[in-house]
Amino acid sequence: MSLLELQPSQRTIMTPGPVEVDPRVLRAMSTPIIGQFDYEFTTIMNETMERLRHVLQTNNHWSYPIDGTSRSGIEAVLCSLVESGDKILVPSFGRFGYLLTEIAERCGGEVRLIECEWGEVFDPEQVIKEMHRMKPKLVAMVHGETSTGRMQPLKEIGYACREMDCLFVVDAVATVGGTEVKTDEWYIDALITGTQKCISVPSGMAPITYNERVEKIILERKSIEKGLVSVTKSSNGKQNRRIRSNYFDLSQIQDYWSPARLNHHTEATTMLYALYEGLRIILEEGLEERIKRHQLHEKALVAGLKEMGMTLFGNDNCKLPMVTCINIPVGIDGEAVRSMLLDEFSIEIASSFGLLHGKIWRVGTMGYSARKKNVLQTLAGLEAVLLRHGVKVNLGAALQGALDIYAKEPVQSIKAIG
Amino acid sequence: MSLLELQPSQRTIMTPGPVEVDPRVLRAMSTPIIGQFDYEFTTIMNETMERLRHVLQTNNHWSYPIDGTSRSGIEAVLCSLVESGDKILVPSFGRFGYLLTEIAERCGGEVRLIECEWGEVFDPEQVIKEMHRMKPKLVAMVHGETSTGRMQPLKEIGYACREMDCLFVVDAVATVGGTEVKTDEWYIDALITGTQKCISVPSGMAPITYNERVEKIILERKSIEKGLVSVTKSSNGKQNRRIRSNYFDLSQIQDYWSPARLNHHTEATTMLYALYEGLRIILEEGLEERIKRHQLHEKALVAGLKEMGMTLFGNDNCKLPMVTCINIPVGIDGEAVRSMLLDEFSIEIASSFGLLHGKIWRVGTMGYSARKKNVLQTLAGLEAVLLRHGVKVNLGAALQGALDIYAKEPVQSIKAIG
Repeated sequence: MSLLELQPSQRTIMTPGPVEVDPRVLRAMSTPIIGQFDYEFTTIMNETMERLRHVLQTNNHWSYPIDGTSRSGIEAVLCSLVESGDKILVPSFGRFGYLLTEIAERCGGEVRLIECEWGEVFDPEQVIKEMHRMKPKLVAMVHGETSTGRMQPLKEIGYACREMDCLFVVDAVATVGGTEVKTDEWYIDALITGTQKCISVPSGMAPITYNERVEKIILERKSIEKGLVSVTKSSNGKQNRRIRSNYFDLSQIQDYWSPARLNHHTEATTMLYALYEGLRIILEEGLEERIKRHQLHEKALVAGLKEMGMTLFGNDNCKLPMVTCINIPVGIDGEAVRSMLLDEFSIEIASSFGLLHGKIWRVGTMGYSARKKNVLQTLAGLEAVLLRHGVKVNLGAALQGALDIYAKEPVQSIKAIG
Repeated sequence: MSLLELQPSQRTIMTPGPVEVDPRVLRAMSTPIIGQFDYEFTTIMNETMERLRHVLQTNNHWSYPIDGTSRSGIEAVLCSLVESGDKILVPSFGRFGYLLTEIAERCGGEVRLIECEWGEVFDPEQVIKEMHRMKPKLVAMVHGETSTGRMQPLKEIGYACREMDCLFVVDAVATVGGTEVKTDEWYIDALITGTQKCISVPSGMAPITYNERVEKIILERKSIEKGLVSVTKSSNGKQNRRIRSNYFDLSQIQDYWSPARLNHHTEATTMLYALYEGLRIILEEGLEERIKRHQLHEKALVAGLKEMGMTLFGNDNCKLPMVTCINIPVGIDGEAVRSMLLDEFSIEIASSFGLLHGKIWRVGTMGYSARKKNVLQTLAGLEAVLLRHGVKVNLGAALQGALDIYAKEPVQSIKAIG
């Protein structure tokens, strides 16, 4: 058996995640570890919670990562809240809406899925009308749908949920750290995000936050793990309401993140180091500056693509600012273009899922990947590869278009990622 | 808000996990990431599977990590196999046996828990007798129980399971990479391990392996995620047998680890880099050499502790070779000793759970922490701290006892971690 050294190529990653990791985060990940109950480590845990509250724009006490990839956070929230037969409404505008449906169903929920055309989002009134009709216990929605490149306005729906005493759960995996995500102001009861998108930390953690409305249900369903307590406790007569997962039982996980430090899992030390540093970078850059940076590089990319002669997929009024969907020109093999871009230029862009597979490419401008160098390289590479595939493009126009944007709006922040 | 730099102290970690990470693994973790569908990354995924097969001593095709901490692997295996009302036998000899019980119950299993005294293991005949009585679908057992420092012989039980067409699931989180774990030879159908113990990689991944007997059940329960396929498929009439978790659905995860690369989660890139390098280090050292190294440092530690005047907890015939449980001397506050060892010497040893809390300390000699330097420092530090707490110890004897062992059996391997 070969025992090859780890030596991947240096890629320019312009997908909707995972994206390039900030070098400061990579450096933090080479830090020797300490034990999970070491007071130095629990201090880092507490500080991470505080940093998360700022980035997630919330006063929620419970703001911590689930040790798993983004969908682990979604499952942790849903399986801790959804009980057998609960009515759940999922308004879906892309693939990740289906994922919410699938997870909620597996948790035992009776899910009502409403859909809108891919490339669009919902008029909030449409969702609210359905809420009034079915009176769900919980509404679960995606904020930024990377599969279609759209972003759903959430505040009106959140307000309606609070009025109807319905829980509002939001998958903000794609958007946190790249655009406004106002957990409290938008009446979001539980919010899930991921590390590998605009936070620019490797995949493997799912930061979540939730309020007292969520905690109340979780505590009602709480049971304590045998073997942790000296006296065996009865299961409180709540056997039937018991959360179906141990790993995703938020009532146990929050005890681990509380001063009690009741052992649940062994916190993923190095991933926590990465998140700790990744959040620090966001807060140093400043949320507002960071959002402006994401807007700038999106604008340059879009200008370049349009000058090149490409058309974009989806309704522009609800475009996700960190994902740009390009219509693949008729007759062109999208995968051949992607492969050539990777092989010749070491640049990765994404294909898509389901209905859109073969019809659009998706380009991400997220986190550390949202930099001038990356945008310009991608436009240059794409132009050359499209030419090789016989697509008629406006020669040289893409880079000029992007450079025009950068000339008008130079990267301001001294901390900015150039 | 403070935005402190990450700068944890350099600890000597002598707990039963998480343990010190090999510096080569830490270095690998600072490698820039690549995309999850990049052929360079899928090559790393395939090579990781191959390395795992060697370390887990199996020919099973399916050998890959679950993206979560160790118990995520246990839950993935159990929730993919256990269906509502299935009869499950859990012979438990410590805390982590209770965890198997708890997870199997939450998966809907009807669990029969049999227990033996903490500090002992089962006579295989006792387990087999119970199997004949109850005819379970599945037997789940811990191999190395870190809570009590005991190791269960598994081969006879495995053979009996195969004879009775019962599944045998083993939690080998503590033992893989530190002592013999023979998946195939011991008739283990599904085995789970963790990264943060003898593999010496940070916590956050749970390598698993399973055979065709397991795969058969998983495939019967398979459903495909909506939004991934162009044509909506019916759920195959198997709604009632559907695996209750999406994140832990092995039928979906194995598609992601197959040439189909059907998207499930976004593989935790940097943790996979770490595992890839951690397994490489194990295979370079050689499993046999590595096991000898663990035995040597355990022997030196035990000799030192006995010379010091300490007594050990549990039946010596089934001692877990990488965990040593010390009886806390009568009248001594175990937590005060641990704190002083950490504060003054930057050495961490562990307390215990449940019944044993306050009664024993647990010292790990696992993976990269199983080195001469660490063993000698721990003995020296413990002697000084015990003296400060008024315990009568044989002055200076511990280090001499350990040095005697090292003099007789010098660290042989040129690759050995000195």
